[in-house]
Formats: sequence, C-alpha cells, structure tokens
Amino acid sequence: MALLIKGGTVVNADRSFRADVLCEDGKIVGLGEGLEAPAGAELVDAGGQYVLPGGIDPHTHMQLPFMGTVASEDFYSGTAAGLAGGTTMIIDFVIPDPQEPLLDAYHKWRGWAEKAAADYSFHVAVTWWDDSVHRDMETLTREHGVNSFKHFMAYKNAIMCDDEVLVNSFSRARELGAICTVHAENGELVYRLQKEIFERGITGPEGHPLSRPPECEGEAANRAIRIAEVLGVPLYVVHNSCKQSLEAITRARLEGQRVFGEVLAGHLLIDDSVYRHPDWRVAAAHVMSPPFRSKEHQEALWQGLQAGMLQTTATDHCCFCDPQKRAGIDDFRKIPNGTAGVEDRMAVLWHHGVNSGRLTPSEFVRVTSTNAAQIFNIYPRKGVVQVGSDADIAVWDPEASRTISARTHHQNIDYNIFEGMTVRGVCSHTVSRGRLVWADGELRAEKGAGRHVDRPVFASYYDALKTRAEVLTPQPVVRAKAAE
Amino acid sequence: MALLIKGGTVVNADRSFRADVLCEDGKIVGLGEGLEAPAGAELVDAGGQYVLPGGIDPHTHMQLPFMGTVASEDFYSGTAAGLAGGTTMIIDFVIPDPQEPLLDAYHKWRGWAEKAAADYSFHVAVTWWDDSVHRDMETLTREHGVNSFKHFMAYKNAIMCDDEVLVNSFSRARELGAICTVHAENGELVYRLQKEIFERGITGPEGHPLSRPPECEGEAANRAIRIAEVLGVPLYVVHNSCKQSLEAITRARLEGQRVFGEVLAGHLLIDDSVYRHPDWRVAAAHVMSPPFRSKEHQEALWQGLQAGMLQTTATDHCCFCDPQKRAGIDDFRKIPNGTAGVEDRMAVLWHHGVNSGRLTPSEFVRVTSTNAAQIFNIYPRKGVVQVGSDADIAVWDPEASRTISARTHHQNIDYNIFEGMTVRGVCSHTVSRGRLVWADGELRAEKGAGRHVDRPVFASYYDALKTRAEVLTPQPVVRAKAAE
Amino acid sequence: MALLIKGGTVVNADRSFRADVLCEDGKIVGLGEGLEAPAGAELVDAGGQYVLPGGIDPHTHMQLPFMGTVASEDFYSGTAAGLAGGTTMIIDFVIPDPQEPLLDAYHKWRGWAEKAAADYSFHVAVTWWDDSVHRDMETLTREHGVNSFKHFMAYKNAIMCDDEVLVNSFSRARELGAICTVHAENGELVYRLQKEIFERGITGPEGHPLSRPPECEGEAANRAIRIAEVLGVPLYVVHNSCKQSLEAITRARLEGQRVFGEVLAGHLLIDDSVYRHPDWRVAAAHVMSPPFRSKEHQEALWQGLQAGMLQTTATDHCCFCDPQKRAGIDDFRKIPNGTAGVEDRMAVLWHHGVNSGRLTPSEFVRVTSTNAAQIFNIYPRKGVVQVGSDADIAVWDPEASRTISARTHHQNIDYNIFEGMTVRGVCSHTVSRGRLVWADGELRAEKGAGRHVDRPVFASYYDALKTRAEVLTPQPVVRAKAAE
Amino acid sequence: MALLIKGGTVVNADRSFRADVLCEDGKIVGLGEGLEAPAGAELVDAGGQYVLPGGIDPHTHMQLPFMGTVASEDFYSGTAAGLAGGTTMIIDFVIPDPQEPLLDAYHKWRGWAEKAAADYSFHVAVTWWDDSVHRDMETLTREHGVNSFKHFMAYKNAIMCDDEVLVNSFSRARELGAICTVHAENGELVYRLQKEIFERGITGPEGHPLSRPPECEGEAANRAIRIAEVLGVPLYVVHNSCKQSLEAITRARLEGQRVFGEVLAGHLLIDDSVYRHPDWRVAAAHVMSPPFRSKEHQEALWQGLQAGMLQTTATDHCCFCDPQKRAGIDDFRKIPNGTAGVEDRMAVLWHHGVNSGRLTPSEFVRVTSTNAAQIFNIYPRKGVVQVGSDADIAVWDPEASRTISARTHHQNIDYNIFEGMTVRGVCSHTVSRGRLVWADGELRAEKGAGRHVDRPVFASYYDALKTRAEVLTPQPVVRAKAAE
Repeated sequence: MALLIKGGTVVNADRSFRADVLCEDGKIVGLGEGLEAPAGAELVDAGGQYVLPGGIDPHTHMQLPFMGTVASEDFYSGTAAGLAGGTTMIIDFVIPDPQEPLLDAYHKWRGWAEKAAADYSFHVAVTWWDDSVHRDMETLTREHGVNSFKHFMAYKNAIMCDDEVLVNSFSRARELGAICTVHAENGELVYRLQKEIFERGITGPEGHPLSRPPECEGEAANRAIRIAEVLGVPLYVVHNSCKQSLEAITRARLEGQRVFGEVLAGHLLIDDSVYRHPDWRVAAAHVMSPPFRSKEHQEALWQGLQAGMLQTTATDHCCFCDPQKRAGIDDFRKIPNGTAGVEDRMAVLWHHGVNSGRLTPSEFVRVTSTNAAQIFNIYPRKGVVQVGSDADIAVWDPEASRTISARTHHQNIDYNIFEGMTVRGVCSHTVSRGRLVWADGELRAEKGAGRHVDRPVFASYYDALKTRAEVLTPQPVVRAKAAE
Repeated sequence: MALLIKGGTVVNADRSFRADVLCEDGKIVGLGEGLEAPAGAELVDAGGQYVLPGGIDPHTHMQLPFMGTVASEDFYSGTAAGLAGGTTMIIDFVIPDPQEPLLDAYHKWRGWAEKAAADYSFHVAVTWWDDSVHRDMETLTREHGVNSFKHFMAYKNAIMCDDEVLVNSFSRARELGAICTVHAENGELVYRLQKEIFERGITGPEGHPLSRPPECEGEAANRAIRIAEVLGVPLYVVHNSCKQSLEAITRARLEGQRVFGEVLAGHLLIDDSVYRHPDWRVAAAHVMSPPFRSKEHQEALWQGLQAGMLQTTATDHCCFCDPQKRAGIDDFRKIPNGTAGVEDRMAVLWHHGVNSGRLTPSEFVRVTSTNAAQIFNIYPRKGVVQVGSDADIAVWDPEASRTISARTHHQNIDYNIFEGMTVRGVCSHTVSRGRLVWADGELRAEKGAGRHVDRPVFASYYDALKTRAEVLTPQPVVRAKAAE
Repeated sequence: MALLIKGGTVVNADRSFRADVLCEDGKIVGLGEGLEAPAGAELVDAGGQYVLPGGIDPHTHMQLPFMGTVASEDFYSGTAAGLAGGTTMIIDFVIPDPQEPLLDAYHKWRGWAEKAAADYSFHVAVTWWDDSVHRDMETLTREHGVNSFKHFMAYKNAIMCDDEVLVNSFSRARELGAICTVHAENGELVYRLQKEIFERGITGPEGHPLSRPPECEGEAANRAIRIAEVLGVPLYVVHNSCKQSLEAITRARLEGQRVFGEVLAGHLLIDDSVYRHPDWRVAAAHVMSPPFRSKEHQEALWQGLQAGMLQTTATDHCCFCDPQKRAGIDDFRKIPNGTAGVEDRMAVLWHHGVNSGRLTPSEFVRVTSTNAAQIFNIYPRKGVVQVGSDADIAVWDPEASRTISARTHHQNIDYNIFEGMTVRGVCSHTVSRGRLVWADGELRAEKGAGRHVDRPVFASYYDALKTRAEVLTPQPVVRAKAAE
Repeated sequence: MALLIKGGTVVNADRSFRADVLCEDGKIVGLGEGLEAPAGAELVDAGGQYVLPGGIDPHTHMQLPFMGTVASEDFYSGTAAGLAGGTTMIIDFVIPDPQEPLLDAYHKWRGWAEKAAADYSFHVAVTWWDDSVHRDMETLTREHGVNSFKHFMAYKNAIMCDDEVLVNSFSRARELGAICTVHAENGELVYRLQKEIFERGITGPEGHPLSRPPECEGEAANRAIRIAEVLGVPLYVVHNSCKQSLEAITRARLEGQRVFGEVLAGHLLIDDSVYRHPDWRVAAAHVMSPPFRSKEHQEALWQGLQAGMLQTTATDHCCFCDPQKRAGIDDFRKIPNGTAGVEDRMAVLWHHGVNSGRLTPSEFVRVTSTNAAQIFNIYPRKGVVQVGSDADIAVWDPEASRTISARTHHQNIDYNIFEGMTVRGVCSHTVSRGRLVWADGELRAEKGAGRHVDRPVFASYYDALKTRAEVLTPQPVVRAKAAE
C-alpha cells in the first residue's frame, strides 16, 4: 500500500527542501512538491513539520545475556520502542563467549532477532582467537552481511581482548575489508581499581565511576587507534564518554586517519552526580560502562559532535530492571551494566542539539542517521530521504513538546535516565519499510516486520586506505655483496 | 539543445553511482541508468569515467589592478582556462580603493565580468570604513546577491584593515547575514620585516618569504577567528598556507565555531625553495602572498584537508607575466604578487589527492566544489550532480595522463607553477550551463556566456549561530536598591 | 645589627635543607646547621618552620592615578602590607600618559616610591611612540636599572598600544636587551562589547566580564607572543586569567620560545559568580581587568602553574575603596578597575597550592619568588636563601592557620577578595634587608626603608636568543646576471 | 689530596658565576673568587672555561648480556670513556631474566660493576611477576639504594611486561616510594610488524625502523603514562625518540602529572636515513630501539628539551661491534640492538644545543646533570657545583674544537654514530670524586675507583603526589536503608 507524506520539509544531511514523499513497497518512490496520492494511499499531513531519514541506532543490546542475567528488552519490544521515537534501524551485537564459535553465536542472535519490528543488523564481537575465529570472520563477511567486528578492551576474565587478540583480529579485518570497533577501557586498570575501591569500603554504585576513570578510557581509545593506524584498518570507537577518548580520536583524525567516534545520548546529557544519589535504586539504574562523567566532559562531547570529530550518536540500549540491578546491592561490581535510551535518543538530541543552536537540522540528520549509514556502508539505502531509498522516515514536529518518563515510555524497563526532561521537538509519525508504524501517539509496530540488513565490506573509504598503503609501502635496500 | 552524458559514474559528495546525465536548458533534467537521448541531443561517452560537479574556484582575481599594473588574465580568458580544467564557476573579488564607494567598485567589476565564459560571483572587500560603507554593505546583500565580504589584514598603506575596521565590518555582516572572509597576515609585522630584510641587503625574491613568515599568518588568522567568535559571525579564512593558520582554524572548529578554511593548490604542492632559484624570473614568478612554505607545511595542509578542517581548494589565480614582475627587479617588495592556477587545480588535486589515497573521489568533489557551494549558499544549484541543479559538469578520465606546461595551457600567463608535473586524471569534457565547452582537448568557451550567480544571505548555518547566540545571551542582575 | 634565624628548614627553588640563617648589613652572611649567634644578634626561632626567600610580587600599582581617581594604597602602606604577608619586594609600573615623556613619568614614580618600606623596582609602560620614546627607552635601561617595558593592548582612547606601537617598541627593546611585557586584551573588541552590552541594558558590574570575554585575552596574548617571536624578543604576559591565553603561552613555549606567563592569586581562586552578587558593592569590589573567570579557567591556570607554563604569581594589587568604585554606579565602564592582594598572595598560594599537593614547597618558592628574580634578572640577589643574597626572608609556619579579612588586614582598602578564607600556613616572621619587620603579628615596617632595585638588561636567556637569531639569519641569493 | 680549579666560571642549573673550586676528600670544600690552594694541592687552570657539574648519564648498559651476546663495553672501559667526555656518573640497569629472582640479578650486576672508574647506580627491571618480585622490590629499596624500577613494553617472548605486570609493579612502586621507568614500544605490534616486513622480503637493517614506527612508541608511552596517572605513581619514560611519545609526555605534564622524559643524544642528531645506507655494516651499526627517526622528530625533540618537557639526556650506551652485529646479517631481527655514546653526549649536546642558541649554559647543565640528580634523588650530592657536593666536575672549554671518531674515542666499540662530527666545546678536565681523571687528552681513570651511589626513595615530589592523592580521595555515600 502506498503512503504519501504531504506538506513537510525534507531534511537530509546536505540540505532541506519542501517536498512530499511517496512510499510504496517499502521504498521511497516519489519526492517533490505537489505529489498526487495514488488511489488508496495512506496520507500523513506533515505541514509545518520536518521529514527526516529514520534514525539509526548503531549500538544496542537487546536481550543480551550479561553478568548473570538477560537484558529485559527483547528485539521486538526494543525495536518497537525505537519506532515510537523515530528510530527505524538498530545495529546490535553478537557476543560469543570465549571459545564459542563465532558462527554459532551469530546464528543464535539472528534467531532472537526474528521478532524485530524494525530493520536490524549485527556487529560481531571477537572475544578470543584461534584459527576458527580467523575463518569465521571471513564467512561472516562473505555470506552474512557482517562488515564490522567488535572488541572489548575491558571486562577482564570475561570477554576482554588483550593486545595480541587485537592485533590478530585487526589484521584479519583489514584483509576482509571490515571495520573494527572497540569498547575502549583499560581492563587491567579497571580490575585493579575495582578491587582497591571495594577494599577501601566503597561498595555502592558510587564506586562504579571511581573504578573506571576517564584516563582508562582515553588510554584504551588511543591504543586501539594507534594499532589500527599501524595496521592500516579503519576503526570505530563506540560510546566515547570523555575528553580523553575524544582527544585521542581528534588527534588521529587531524592526521588524516580513518577513525570514527560514537557518542551516547546519555553521555551528552547526564553527569556523574547520579552515582552519589541517596537512593541506591537511582544510582544503580545509571550503572553502565563507561560511566557518566563530570559536566566538563559533556561540553567537550558536544563540541566534538559539532566539529565532526564524533560522527554518530547511539544509546548502548541495554535494559536491566531494578530486581536485576540488585544483584550488586552489596558490591557495585555485580550491578549489571546498562541503561535504556533507544526511544528517546532522537528527541533529546534535537532538543539539546538543534534548539540550542549547536546543530543545524541537517547536522542533526547526519549524526542520528546518515553518518552511521555511510560508515557501516548501507547508504543510500538508509540514511537519506531520496527516491530509491528504504522508506524509513521520521516526521518531526519541531513545535510539539513532551516530557519523558518511564511511566509513559514504550521501553521494557522500569527507569528512564531522562526522567522528567521536557523536550521540544517530537516524532509525530514513523514510517518503517513504507508502513506507518507510529502516528500521533499510537504505536503500530508489528512483530517480525523488521529485516536483517546486510552490510557489504570495503566501504568507499577502504579504497583510499588501500591506495595510501600501497603508495607508502617501502622497498628493501639492494646491497651489493652486503657486508662481507 | 539537450546533452546526454552516457555510461559514467556520477560522483557526488555523499556517494558515487552509475548514471547517465541528461541536460537541457542549462539544467540537469535527468539522472539514471539507461536514459534515452532526446532527438538531436549531443552525446558524451563517459564510459570508464567519472561525472563530477563542475569545479568551483572560490578565489580568483581576473584583470585585477594591483601594485601598479593589471593582472594579465581577463574574465574571458580566465574563465575559459578554468573550463579547460573542469572548473565551471569562479568567485572573484571586488576591491575598492580606500575611500572608493563600494557600489562604484562593484559595478565596475560587474562590467568587466560581462565577457566571462563561465558563471561567476563576487566577494566584496571592505578596505575602509564610514557610514556609506555601512549602507552599501546592505545594498549589496539585498540587491546584488553578495553574501561575503573580504578583509585584508596585510598591505599596510594600501588596502589593509586595522582591528577597528574589522570589528565594524564583522558586526555589520552579522546583522546582514553575510559571511566574512579574511586575508590573514599581520600587516604591521610584514611591513617591518620587509624594511629590515631589504636594508639587510636581501633585495631579491628570496626576501619575499622572509618578510612574511608563517607566524604572521597564524597570528592574523587567529585574530580574525577570535573577533568573529566574539561577535558571533561566520568566518572564511582564505589561502591558508601554513600550520599556524591551520591550527588556528582547527582550534576554533574543535570548539564548534563556524569557521571555514581554504587552501590553494599551490600551497599544497610547492615549497619555498623556489624563491632561492638561481633564475630571478623563476623565483619572481612564484611571488605571491602568503608565500609558498617549507615542506612540513604542505604535509600539514593535506592533513587539514583530509580531516575536514580545510573545506575548500582554490587558486588565488592572479596572473602577472615576467615583464610585469620585473617592476621588482631591484626590490622584492615591488614584484606584483600573484600566480596562476585556475586551469590546473582540479587535476593536481586529483593526482596528489585521490591517486595518493589521501582523498576518496567523493571527498575530492567536496573540496573542489560542494563545500564552496554550501558555504557560499548556492547549493544545490551548484556543487552536485542531481536533477534540478545547473548543468555544470566535469567528465573525468581517471586513467588519462597529461603533463602540465605553460606552453600548452590556456591561461594568459607565461609561467606555470606546476610546469612539468605529469598528472594521471584528466578532465575530458566540461559542460557549462548545459553546453559542451571542452571536449577532448578542444575548447569551445563562449565569451559572455557566463552569468552572475546571486548568493543569498543567511546560509543555513546562520540560523544555528543565531539560535545559539540567543540561548547564551545573559541578562542583567536585578539589584534591590543597589548600593545605597 | 645581626639577625639569626635558628632551627628552620630552608626552602629554595632547588631543594630544602636544615640550616640556620645569619643576616648582617642587609645580606645573608651565614647558612648552616648550628650557627652561633654573634653578640647582640636578634634571634628568630624557626623550629618546625620553613625559611623561604621573601616573596616578590612582580605586578603592583601603588597610588596609581587611574580612571579619574588614585589608588588608595601608597608605596608605604602597600609595601608594609606585603611585608606582613612575607612579600619583601614589589615591581610596580610607571605609566606615562600618551605624549608624556617616559623619563618625566619615571621620575615622578620614583619620587612617590621613596616612602616604600620594602624593596621595589619599576616596569615602564610604552603608551605611545615617537623618537623621544625611542631615546628614553635607552636612557632608562642604561641609567635607571629598567629592563622591562609594559604594553597595554586594551584601554582604547587611553593607554592602549596598537600593533604599530607594539612593533616599534618590541624592536627597540630587542636592541636594548630589555624584556617586553603585555596586558593582553583586544581593546577594540572590549570597546565594542562594552558599548553593546551597556546599550542592551546591562549597566551593573555583571556587564564587566561580559565585555571582556576570555577570547579577547587569548587573542591578544597570542598576537603579542607571535610579534615577539618574529622580532626575536623575550616576552612576559602579565595576569593570565584564562585557558585561552595560557594556551597561547603554552604553544609558544612548546616550540622553545622565550615567553613567560604570570598569574594572579585572585584568578587562581575566585570565579566570575562574584559579578552577579546581589550586593552591588561586592560585585563592584571585584571589578578588575581581566576579570575573574568561570571555574574551568582556574583549574587550567593551576595546571599551567604546575607544568611550568606559568612561572610567576602576582596580585596586580591596585586598591580602590567603595566610594571610589561608586563612580560606576550607573555604568560598569566607569568602575575603577582593581583589587588588592599583596598581603595575602603567599598564604593563599601555600594553602591552595602546597596543602593540596599541587606544588612542593620548592615549587612554591619558584612561583612566588625565584622565577620572578631570574626573569627580571635580579637573581641571586633576590629569590634565594644563600650566602651573599639580600636578607629578604619569610619564616613560614606550615601548621599555623589564620582567617583572611578586611577587618584585620594591613592593606589600605575596605574589601578583601579572599574574605573569610581560612588558610593553613602563615608567615610568622619577615626579614627585609636584614631587619625583622614582621614578627608574630607585629608589623615593624619602616617608611622609606625600601630601596630601588636596579635590574640589568641582557638577562642570561638573551644570549641564547641572540645566538639563535644569528644562527638562523638567512643570506641573499647571489644571482649571476639576474634576470636580464 | 686537594685539587683547586682556578679562574673558571661555574655554571649551575640556576646561574653562572666566577669562582674557584676547591676539592678535598672527594667533596667540594671551597667555592669563591680568589681561593688559596692548600699546600700540595693539584691545580687546574680553568681560565676562560666553564666549570660544570659532571655529567650524569642515566641510561647505560655496560657488559649487558643481550640477544645472544654480551655488550663489548664493560663497567671499567665504559665509565672511563665517560670520564673522558665529562660524564662522572652512570645509572645502569639490572635486567633479570623472567623467573630470575630480582635480588640474584642485582647482586650479579653489582659484582660486575666493581671495576667501574666512576660512580654508578642501578635501575632494576621488573620483567615478570610473583610474590617474590613483590618482596624483592621492597628489599631493594630498603637495603640497596634502589629507587627506580624499569619496565620493557617491547621484546615479546623475552623481557616484555604486559599490562598486568605493569599494574602490579607500578602499584608496588607507589607503596615503596620508588619511581617507575618504561621502555615504551608496543611489543605486540612490533612483533607483528617484524614478521610482516621480513616476510615481505625486507631482511636488512632498513626493516628495523619499519618494524618499530613512532606510533608504536607513542602508544606505549601514553599507556604507561595513563597507568601511572591512575595509580598515582611518578613515571620516567626513557629514550623518547619521536613526536608521538613527546606529545604523550607533554599532555600529561600540562595536566600537572609528575612524568619525566629522557632523550638520547643520538635521537636528537641522527636521522633514519642511516638504515638505508648501502653498506650493511653502517646500517647495522645504527640498529637500536627505538630506532633513529626522520628529521621532523629531531626538531620536535629539541623543542621538547627547550620547553622542559624532556628533562634528561642519556645515551642508552650499549656497545656491539661489527662481528656481533653480523648475527643478523640475514635477518634484521637478530642484529643486537645498541649504539654507543657515553663519551660524546656532553660535547654533541653543547655544540648543537648551546652553540645553536637553543639552550643557555645553565639549561645545558640541567639536562645533562642536575635534572637527573633531582629526579633520581641524589641531589645535591650530584648535579651541582657547591660546597658539600661530591667533587664530580667537568671543566669545559667553549672555544676548543675536536672531531669525533671511532679511531680516537675511548669507547670499546668499532663504530661511532657521530663519526666525523666537529664540535666546538670540549671537556678539558674531568674531576671524579675529587681526583683529576682526565686532563688535556690524558685519561687517568682508575679501575675500581667508582662507588655505588645509593638513591633514597620518596623523592621530594613524592610528598606532593601523596598529599594530592589524599586530598582527592573520595568517600563512600552513606545511604539510609539503601534500596530495600
């Protein structure tokens, strides 16, 4: 069935313009002023509103088994909540246990995701190394549309990579044309600090940020970036929360390196005072890694986003309810790490980014959708409103307001880190694969309607990387009768 | 008459894709695979080639009266030479003498430009200040399509602005929604150094770079940037030649400031050893300001371009032939400043930028065309190959090679700073306003075919700037019976 | 009469050690453990205390005629207050009016200073330029012990220098072996902002910092530094209050430039919230230039001090009482600029610097005394406790505490910016020129006991500067029959 | 026997002054103009010369067993060569094999060093970890005068530490008041690159720098610095060879961190073109780690030294003669790593540092002697010419010249990396422990005359570090009935 969005202003990464948008069979098929609605087409009145490419959240963890429990949000409820906020695609993570074959884990996650209401794709984590991992990386890129591999530099004695694994996996990714991604925290330091702080008698959630200071993150980000530089592979650093890792990215980008940085909505807006909240439940609800930081870091992150040093915004959506968080009632190290956000990311970024004058609407589109699509090589299928693209669209009312609350959100979690925040700028309608799935407060998400999105390897920047490597390759010195 | 470009790969700033391009009445009217040629349409076979938005050179000086002579290249010959190299639009400069009314100067330059073979527009220089200048700035923006004002921080006793003029003009530009541009060199220092160096017995062209060290440029760039920051106006720094000014721009951009930087093809590729050439003619032919720099600066400028800290590439095309240069045979201070380049910019940037792996083809398009169109607010009329845009197109053969030489170039000057450079990547065809004006070595430029391009004020980034200023505006403190 | 300080720990810039200190005839004549007191010698028991080189405050304005009034602290009362806090020498400023001969002004100030209770010296400001200024600078350096010239980059229409004067004066200073100093704020911008803010209806003291944002200071600091770099003259930037100017200094020092930076005790400890105080008197009492800044700047300044990027601490001691401040009751632009501090600088720096672990005691000595002595070339006469040096000494009790208050201070002003601050670390005794002038709360300062301290030109770093300049001097190119 | 150095200019870190120097019983006992020689005293005429604190080389490896051979220079020949160049003390390294008890290794090295002709001390490397290492570190600091522990971040499968060992050892050092030192190169990356480069067919010495790019060094330096920052321990980074590690140090120091950096004379003066020398012997003779770098790094290192970001200069003196180097004739990975320099460090630094105007003579003294003494806590016993200090002195003739050559040097190696360099500024006499051991070309070094120098823990900067840590220590949140 056709759908016509009339009277709005389309905002793409490069510009905005008045146009109606016609969708059919999951695709955008018409774009222009004064389009006629085909017979039977559904109509959306976008007068006075913006028509944006649907948001892409490149960092979520639906129903993740982690720290002895499982994230409360599944692929259906999570993607549906995203749709209510204008996010039409997620990229989630396959995280094998050490020694678990990558392909086994991959198929397990694909099965879980079949109930998704919106499109999705998967980064695959490399948590260990042997020849089978080397082989499976190739199979994933060739046959399963995976073009990104994740590496955890923290979580010692669990999923942490040491430098040897990083070097092996990055080298392999370079051969395959995949992009590497890292969770950057120095796991050895975190482990030591956790122990010291706990033994010093700090057992509550306030111990969490103390055990993961920004220096740990900055160090690991810098390390991963330099390893990627030396090996000649593109790198994407997830959830930068602090000046230190931003600076590591900035240094590298200023030298021309192909490194990308993601920032979470939460890290832009919430500071570390939450961990000293007198109510343990509130403090624990904010436990995630890397933790929220002091205010100076938020200002730095905003500037990084404005300057283009950070390209994408995400949520690390990973829901644990209070009963789950209580596993760490006596020991902050046992509180499951994770917070929600997939539903509210677009709104809080619009309010604090566009209404504040930090970002133009086009820049907002870049950091919520287009850049992610380009980095992960699914552009222009995703990330732009143009003829031929997937009909994943958010209609955005810049004058409407709403107040965020766990009481009204669609996320399957009992807490909202943005609780009480009133935002101006609301997603009035969401179109997913051409279907109207959110309209003025009514959520029509359909279980299983989402599709896996294959992401091809060798994104355009890879060619330049390879050309440069060839240009710079040194030759041996020919020495006549060397050193007799 | 229609024109169909068949079989090529369109490269825009956001991506590349296979498509034929149909042009009619000066516009692009069709884009897609397998387009049919209308009856009588001219055909260009772009098989194996790229189809690029025509280059925009945002910094030229055709037939400029300067230092007692007039630049040898006029608006016809200069724009024609540009077309031979794939550049389809220039932005030139109106430069009033101190006390000369801005509008008088503007009309004079418009008259000179009527013979242009390609589209053009004008920055207008503010070289002095009184109420008439204040008024004329408004008239220019409202009635004449000017959205940028230029300020020379050097050339003491001629067209140099002091800080008072800068502050007045920047403030006025902010009210009008125009962007400010600066030639950044500390004119007082240059003046002092010229004198000292000349008196020390250095009278030849090697004295030129000694009198304009990078520190002078970096200082002035930083000063203009900070004045623009404080006054809340966007700034465009022309012809950055050195690390120092690049760093000033970088610092500001990393803080989120709306400042833009231009780099000349020459500064990317030529070093200051030319000024010590034993042949005076060669050394003098390279005299321009700011001068060519030592090699470390070139590497820095390339990185700035890759990192997006510099957005545009230009030439400062300003031709003086050897007989003109000889005015300074005994005193480097009297050598007319200027070098050519409008014809070769695209080719040298492709060769050294794309073939080296520094830039992807899309990034090349950004820095040669799209960014200039966006900054100077004529996008998407210029800067992109899409339906509705002006049919200004360069067909680019990435496998063809040519060797640059003054003997074969179309520029009206007896020297080429890229003499002898062999480049791979050649503009095979150029389309200007829908007409094929360059085809496999034949130049069909038509005198007077170019049109003035009006540039509206309040480019999209201006809205964000204003919003931000409002958000940050402080209020007075209300003090009850203050301080009796 | 001899004086023996027994049982203390001498702290110098390079180390600390147990030693008694014997003073005679104004000099230190003995240093070692177990010294015998000569007959009739006065004894100071320094057991458990530190024995420090007396503080040098390199930036004061006693009885300055400024903004239509005269600073309330004269050379006697001001130096006496300094002695009560352990400061045994000040460097004040001779500030000629434009067109006033430098020597006339110099002699006027020397006359005023004759009543000083502690040693003093003068920077001389260059506020205008002609041949007489050129001549007088030489006379001052040759005959009057002046080795530093001050330049105000703000205060338009009063004592502001433009770039032309800066370039002239810096060049002259280089010839004479003098160091240049600058008050770095862009006066044109300040002037514009003052007008805009006042016209916007902000007339109270809160308008003061708004009219002098950190960007104005950073810009001017960078400008002065780069001019000094190009001309090859050492530079000292007074009262750096913000990250921006610190960064300008840091950039230059990291390149090896001989540039020095001063920070005021006030800028390290007080933030700009004072200007929004509901009591006009409190707000106005803090009006000085550059103004106090937001907290992030204080943290940066401390780090700059720790890192050695800032070498000296001062006060810009310039006292105006409430009745004087009231000249600006309706217009913040008319509030006399200035705050006090000469008495408390050492104590607040010890408390916040040493007790916090930021500085070792030796580092404290460097930034309160030794570095100033070395930069202004009066070391080791001042700045160190060693045999042969002037007997200017502060005995420091690290365990004693006191609370700072205008009610108890010795400064001739009705307000203290550190009011209510309790500091641990108190000057128990001060020795000036061998005399005990402060002992356990009793001030024995003697009017006229202070002496002018001649400061010779060509400090040791000047030799290196000149050598480097010679090594880098370029030669002309010899061209056979150049360019016939 | 007494020794009187007459007529010279003493240069200390803080200033220079005319003074004779009287030495007796290994100490300086008199300092002043016109000293009388005691009966029988030996006289040195230092007229027109400088009298400097003897050089301290804080980084040497005499008779080191390494890569299957043993360094050719033993403790006698090496210290004697140092004396010939004005270096009167070395700090060498005890390097246990993994699993070898630290104390065993320590005693072995102490035995080897008994024949030293000049004073010496030892850093002890931590190359593995268990409880015995934890214990031995305490014994070494308490009983053996060791206050510094070394960590190799490179040399995988040999002496490399991983992050776990670093964290354990740094934490232990903090408890003991010792300073940590690191050889900063990412060993995993080096290992991978060595393999890749060798397999690519680059087997000669030119493969050596390719396998150890500056990025590997910068990464490791940054990692060690951040680990030290988080754990609150001072750090000393040895042999910084490149911008990248210098920048890591600079970043940390600008934040106030207590981190120190060393640079080798070779890295300041030699560039990486040596590795492509057509003569294998020459290329191989320069193989050391980190390798010599391209010229831009040398300029950066000089600036770092001038700016005080690097505090010490050393040599990493580790001699292997050509027959030893040939072990790697077919595989650059097997060439023993090491070059000489202990004899020439002072001279090349004077020539290129002082004669170029980069450093004043006092700054030269700081970076060749005083800073090392202060960092390693043996000041003022070493590092200054003053009464009470050890009589370790270099008399320096600033006008004499010599040409460096392996044919004339006293080092026990067949190659000199400074071969053919003519330096102005020569050590005319060296005094070690009060004895004249080098006089106008005659070397009177005595085997076994050197003594071990105990270095106490808890250097002065440690107090500040601990105070700061206490001030910043966070407290637990007290939550009433937390989270029932």
